[in-house]
Amino acid sequence: MRPMTAPNEPASANDLKLLDRYWRAANYLSVGQIYLLDNPLLREPLKPEHIKPRLLGHWGTTPGLNFIYAHLNRVICAFDLSIIYVCGPGHGGPGMVANTYLEGTYTGIYPEVTCDADGLRKLFRQFSFPGGIPSHAAPETPGSIHEGGELGYALVHAFGAAFDNPDLIVACVVGDGEAETGPLAASWHSNKFLNPKHDGAVLPILHLNGYKIANPAVLARMSDKEIRSLFVGYGYEPLFVEGDEPDSMHRMMADTVDRALSAIRSIQHGAREGSADFQRPKWPMIVLRSPKGWTGPKEVDGLKVEAFWRAHQVPIANPRGNPEHLQLLEQWMRSYEPETLFDASGRLVPELRDLAPAGDRRMGANPHANGGLLKRELKLPDFRAYAVEVADPGGGVAEATRELGKFLREVMKLNADARNFRIMGPDETASNRLEAVFEATDRVWMEGIEPYDVHLAHDGRVMEVLSEHLCQGWLEGYLLTGRHGFFSCYEAFIHIVDSMLNQHAKWLKVSRALTWRRPIASLNYLLTSHVWRQDHNGFSHQDPGFVDLVTNKKADIVRVYFPPDANTLLWVGDHCLRTYDRINVIVAGKQPAPQWLPMREAIIHCEAGIGIWKWAGTEAPNAEPDVVMACAGDVPTLETLAAVDLLRRALPALRIRVVNVVDLMTLQPKDQHPHGLSDRDFDSLFTRDKPVIFAYHGYPYLIHRLTYNRANHAGMHVRGFAEEGTTTTPFDMVVLNGLDRFHLAIEAIERVPGLDIAAAHVKQQFRDRLIEHSRYVREHGEDMPEIRNWVWPAGGTTAREPGD
Amino acid sequence: MRPMTAPNEPASANDLKLLDRYWRAANYLSVGQIYLLDNPLLREPLKPEHIKPRLLGHWGTTPGLNFIYAHLNRVICAFDLSIIYVCGPGHGGPGMVANTYLEGTYTGIYPEVTCDADGLRKLFRQFSFPGGIPSHAAPETPGSIHEGGELGYALVHAFGAAFDNPDLIVACVVGDGEAETGPLAASWHSNKFLNPKHDGAVLPILHLNGYKIANPAVLARMSDKEIRSLFVGYGYEPLFVEGDEPDSMHRMMADTVDRALSAIRSIQHGAREGSADFQRPKWPMIVLRSPKGWTGPKEVDGLKVEAFWRAHQVPIANPRGNPEHLQLLEQWMRSYEPETLFDASGRLVPELRDLAPAGDRRMGANPHANGGLLKRELKLPDFRAYAVEVADPGGGVAEATRELGKFLREVMKLNADARNFRIMGPDETASNRLEAVFEATDRVWMEGIEPYDVHLAHDGRVMEVLSEHLCQGWLEGYLLTGRHGFFSCYEAFIHIVDSMLNQHAKWLKVSRALTWRRPIASLNYLLTSHVWRQDHNGFSHQDPGFVDLVTNKKADIVRVYFPPDANTLLWVGDHCLRTYDRINVIVAGKQPAPQWLPMREAIIHCEAGIGIWKWAGTEAPNAEPDVVMACAGDVPTLETLAAVDLLRRALPALRIRVVNVVDLMTLQPKDQHPHGLSDRDFDSLFTRDKPVIFAYHGYPYLIHRLTYNRANHAGMHVRGFAEEGTTTTPFDMVVLNGLDRFHLAIEAIERVPGLDIAAAHVKQQFRDRLIEHSRYVREHGEDMPEIRNWVWPAGGTTAREPGD
Repeated sequence: MRPMTAPNEPASANDLKLLDRYWRAANYLSVGQIYLLDNPLLREPLKPEHIKPRLLGHWGTTPGLNFIYAHLNRVICAFDLSIIYVCGPGHGGPGMVANTYLEGTYTGIYPEVTCDADGLRKLFRQFSFPGGIPSHAAPETPGSIHEGGELGYALVHAFGAAFDNPDLIVACVVGDGEAETGPLAASWHSNKFLNPKHDGAVLPILHLNGYKIANPAVLARMSDKEIRSLFVGYGYEPLFVEGDEPDSMHRMMADTVDRALSAIRSIQHGAREGSADFQRPKWPMIVLRSPKGWTGPKEVDGLKVEAFWRAHQVPIANPRGNPEHLQLLEQWMRSYEPETLFDASGRLVPELRDLAPAGDRRMGANPHANGGLLKRELKLPDFRAYAVEVADPGGGVAEATRELGKFLREVMKLNADARNFRIMGPDETASNRLEAVFEATDRVWMEGIEPYDVHLAHDGRVMEVLSEHLCQGWLEGYLLTGRHGFFSCYEAFIHIVDSMLNQHAKWLKVSRALTWRRPIASLNYLLTSHVWRQDHNGFSHQDPGFVDLVTNKKADIVRVYFPPDANTLLWVGDHCLRTYDRINVIVAGKQPAPQWLPMREAIIHCEAGIGIWKWAGTEAPNAEPDVVMACAGDVPTLETLAAVDLLRRALPALRIRVVNVVDLMTLQPKDQHPHGLSDRDFDSLFTRDKPVIFAYHGYPYLIHRLTYNRANHAGMHVRGFAEEGTTTTPFDMVVLNGLDRFHLAIEAIERVPGLDIAAAHVKQQFRDRLIEHSRYVREHGEDMPEIRNWVWPAGGTTAREPGD
Repeated sequence: MRPMTAPNEPASANDLKLLDRYWRAANYLSVGQIYLLDNPLLREPLKPEHIKPRLLGHWGTTPGLNFIYAHLNRVICAFDLSIIYVCGPGHGGPGMVANTYLEGTYTGIYPEVTCDADGLRKLFRQFSFPGGIPSHAAPETPGSIHEGGELGYALVHAFGAAFDNPDLIVACVVGDGEAETGPLAASWHSNKFLNPKHDGAVLPILHLNGYKIANPAVLARMSDKEIRSLFVGYGYEPLFVEGDEPDSMHRMMADTVDRALSAIRSIQHGAREGSADFQRPKWPMIVLRSPKGWTGPKEVDGLKVEAFWRAHQVPIANPRGNPEHLQLLEQWMRSYEPETLFDASGRLVPELRDLAPAGDRRMGANPHANGGLLKRELKLPDFRAYAVEVADPGGGVAEATRELGKFLREVMKLNADARNFRIMGPDETASNRLEAVFEATDRVWMEGIEPYDVHLAHDGRVMEVLSEHLCQGWLEGYLLTGRHGFFSCYEAFIHIVDSMLNQHAKWLKVSRALTWRRPIASLNYLLTSHVWRQDHNGFSHQDPGFVDLVTNKKADIVRVYFPPDANTLLWVGDHCLRTYDRINVIVAGKQPAPQWLPMREAIIHCEAGIGIWKWAGTEAPNAEPDVVMACAGDVPTLETLAAVDLLRRALPALRIRVVNVVDLMTLQPKDQHPHGLSDRDFDSLFTRDKPVIFAYHGYPYLIHRLTYNRANHAGMHVRGFAEEGTTTTPFDMVVLNGLDRFHLAIEAIERVPGLDIAAAHVKQQFRDRLIEHSRYVREHGEDMPEIRNWVWPAGGTTAREPGD
């Protein structure tokens, strides 16, 4: 926010009279969108044929949204502010469309919706209409970064937008329905992570209009005393605006918004000009109590509508079929006096046009709400500089995420001045072994900091809170306003944000089709502390199913990577940070593990996304193998190679191919995913008819789902997580799920036809080893030394074939 | 809670001295579980071989949990209370195990863990050990209804347990980490739904021990003033207990627990003996500030441990390898003076044994925490009485969920006295057209009720709050304590509770293997307002992927039903309410739709779960059809039948079979799911080689995943939701995703080999109709009359074959 020089004069009575007319214009346009096919200015009496055959929209929240919009316009003009509007009750889409139309943004983006009667007709008709626009504050809506379809994320998006945007104010309307949700209830604590010096301000406007679809809202029925206590407890200074009489409400709202802005200004001034050890401020928030369906019909068919839940959607149900309803609708619309609001051509009258801000100050045109416009490329170091030395496959040991952490540290450093990169994690950045980033920055923390605290600072760029919802929502808001980020999370608990992932994927899918929306940085997940290595925590922490959800999304948008070691993880991490408009999921371990590929080979392997590891197999040249041992994921890769080692020693004549998958989408048909292999390429890896023993990190069904159309699908035998878990050793976990080296080797022997009696004997040996394992682990509480100490034989096993 | 007659005397100094020793015993056993393989009573100096090779557990939260447990034991004995203990920080499993062992419950359930030195050794060794017990308050833990692995649900489970249990007090420990999560932040508002007359009490104990894994906790760093304000705002009376000196802390805690119980008693007395129009009370809660890792080592290796996050897991990292660490551990354990706590045999000394409650009053043995023990069968009316008349297939129109609502109304009435059935929904019971239940009960609402409010009451049994998390969590708590329920939800937003579903499925999976845990009623979902009929809301409300998540869970536990009409929905609803230990997902529409099966046929069809609809097909007797048109879901069934109607008229010679799937799990192989069809039965429905056009409600991949092993898998062509959605007409939605009658009919023609030129002509006609649709819907805003008015020809089409 820019420093103010002029004294803060209250809005004049005349200002507020005009503002009231502007509000009425927005309300009129909102009702028009819900109801009218034609006759947009009511130049003739309403007739049934002017009414849409299907009435689909939400009136109840809309007049309140319009009221707020008009008041924000006033202060934007008065103080030359940069404000964006996050509309929590996104189903109030008609209001957002109406306002961006009134301010001229809408016509700028959609020129066919002109500022005249014909444009109004189009504006009304397209709303919630086939081939038209959605009913919500969707990507199609100018100025929106928040669809508001699934409730709960308005405030967390608003904070995400405000971080590192010191000149921005994010006005965020929180409906009283949304306020009941968990994510929203936690979002209020985001004030503990907002730095008044470097970040912008969030101005929450809790809109208590009393009702949801069919119930009172919990917060709306709380007393002002409790509401005040609750938000003081959350750390805010709540300012109340309550009533239903427009004139007095305008006066109260104008004064209250002025007061809130003055408080923001004073907080920011103090932090930016004052001492370095400023404390967490008490940010202002507004509690607006206004009637649901305000200015709409008081009663319909003898039932209470205004200030009640019956105003939620379409208050007058059947104006096309019921003449009384039609008359009521006409009275309602005429009560806004459209003839005083629009000129003969259908354009908003000049004195009202003057109330809207101009250019980029219009909330529909603010570039922060089309973040791709402001996006700066992320500066990335050469990831090859962080390569782990791998002299021989399996020769070294490293913790993959720890190596990635060093790369991320440099990303953090290179972009420190740009302040456009943050890392999110639910209290797990160190646990996930990305600690190196703390050499470049700290965790942001606006509460008290004790001398013994570690890496906490007011201006840290790592955001840790024990809420996956907040991590995800902050990051979404940050990305949508043109910045970059990275979210590391325990694999099992990323399911907490399944539905947020769905909604973000939907946003991206729609946005990509809108040329005026510029690409934003991808949402990058690192899922670690994964299913196979939850040694401390057991079954509740073991769930690899997020990937299944992700692969249901549009192929253009999603990518899933299973780098098997540190160098491949570095390639993948670098790659994901360079992409746009995507959701990238990286699954990688944090535990010490063998390293397979030197960087040069890692790059080749990752660029292909999948490949044969010749050094591991025993194929004869120019001949197909007897069996393909495929793997995706670090632990499955380890177990596969250990199985291959067992087989090479025990059955040296067996011709084995090892295929490793980094980019899961390569498995899909080429026509279903841009990364999908052609059938020819797929067959050249997996053969058309040889048995494939596929060790997969997650639920095995997914591999079948991705490959069911391939020639060799009947030959694919997939092992993965079979929902068997507990607190046990790493090797016992894979054994419980049949993903261990012995089970894999046994299955290979079983699936290859025509093996001799020696093979049967080997199989029995492996079974005995499983029994031995079970006995050992239960006695000693750790895995057998031969398991713990196994390494891939350097330079090949004794069984290695000549010429291989 | 039972009325108290004796005056409430404070705990004596001697009581508290004993209590302190009891606490020390619990702490000792907790440390022992984390560290020791042997030498449980330290009868000899600790040696490296006494230490577990892998140290896996969480100390930090545990002494606080033990402190609370001991104080609750005191009041249970003093006032003969029925209390269960919901342990939010479930990773404090050692504490829960230690306490249930001390009180004798543990040995009662697991007799091999005897009350002597040998039993202690087993107790220590099994913890977080292969073949032993998990590190969390898992199903294996007596007295637990809450694993606490995924944080967020402690308080909502506690409230679920308290509803309709007037004599129960649910003590619920909320960790300060968990308090940051969204679901927990919303759960505090559960007090607006708890009726002091008919429900029990929840006593929340917010445990501010300061730190999470590697960070301070947000709420812990808030001032007492803010914490007080926050919880007064939430509607509680917060009582503070703060410090680190055991003696004074015991005194404060004892007095505070007494004060909280006195407040509960007074609230309940007022509501139960007083006037009918009692108001929402200010329930007491306790804010306990105690050091993380309390009584543990202050420093290790020169770094602060006690009262810091380094105490979170295993404070002394390497006693097996580092002699200093070993010595430190021994000092720590001996500081509890085990020789004064356990007798020569290793049994707890008598004066401490006397501190634990007896029998079912022990929190580990309270039957409410093993709800199956208390479960009463739900009384169900004869669902056939609610049958919709179906003279001819497609002849009538009904809203399926509205009919189910009438059945649920009767369920509600029949079990009104038992008070053991509730319906949950996020403000959608009416929207989902289950309104009939409001003839039997109301929505529970403890806030103010206005004269114009509709179906709100203090003692309603429908629970509506705009939080899927709360609905799910309340229901889980209700079921886990032996009651029954039903959760109706918009299909898309059930993803909000994906991770809760995962955790509940894990709980059931483990519980089923424990003979002492009795079966509980199934978790029943009705997913409606589904992807195909989100006419008002568009893309954000369109997601059918929950079923994909559910089918990753253990086959024993999950069932998914797609009843195509009202009578089948009635059968399915009745069936699900009769099952135990399952998660049943029912997907069904709420919109007016054609009805296919009279009740008699609906029963036969649903019992099989899948079947041929002979009346719809054109098969010749004793011959295979040319094509199978399969469908699962109400809208896919409608479109399939409309496609069949088109094909029958246009290509009367085409032999069509119609297969309808109600129970999705029938598609899986018999060896993977108990409901799975044998290959023979599957082939007899779907043939081994004829094309199958499968119209599926959700993401098509799922059908491939379920059927990839079937003989005819290559012939399965599945259409479903292709992630194309917006606000549009019902028919336009299916067209956008290629699931409409025309696309289905075209695909059938394309897949059947050897059709003549006439078929090509028909195909072109259907394509033209799609173009015509697109034009019409964009002009008129509603579907073409022929689509809206289509009905299945009564008595068969003209093309019907003789003898069919």
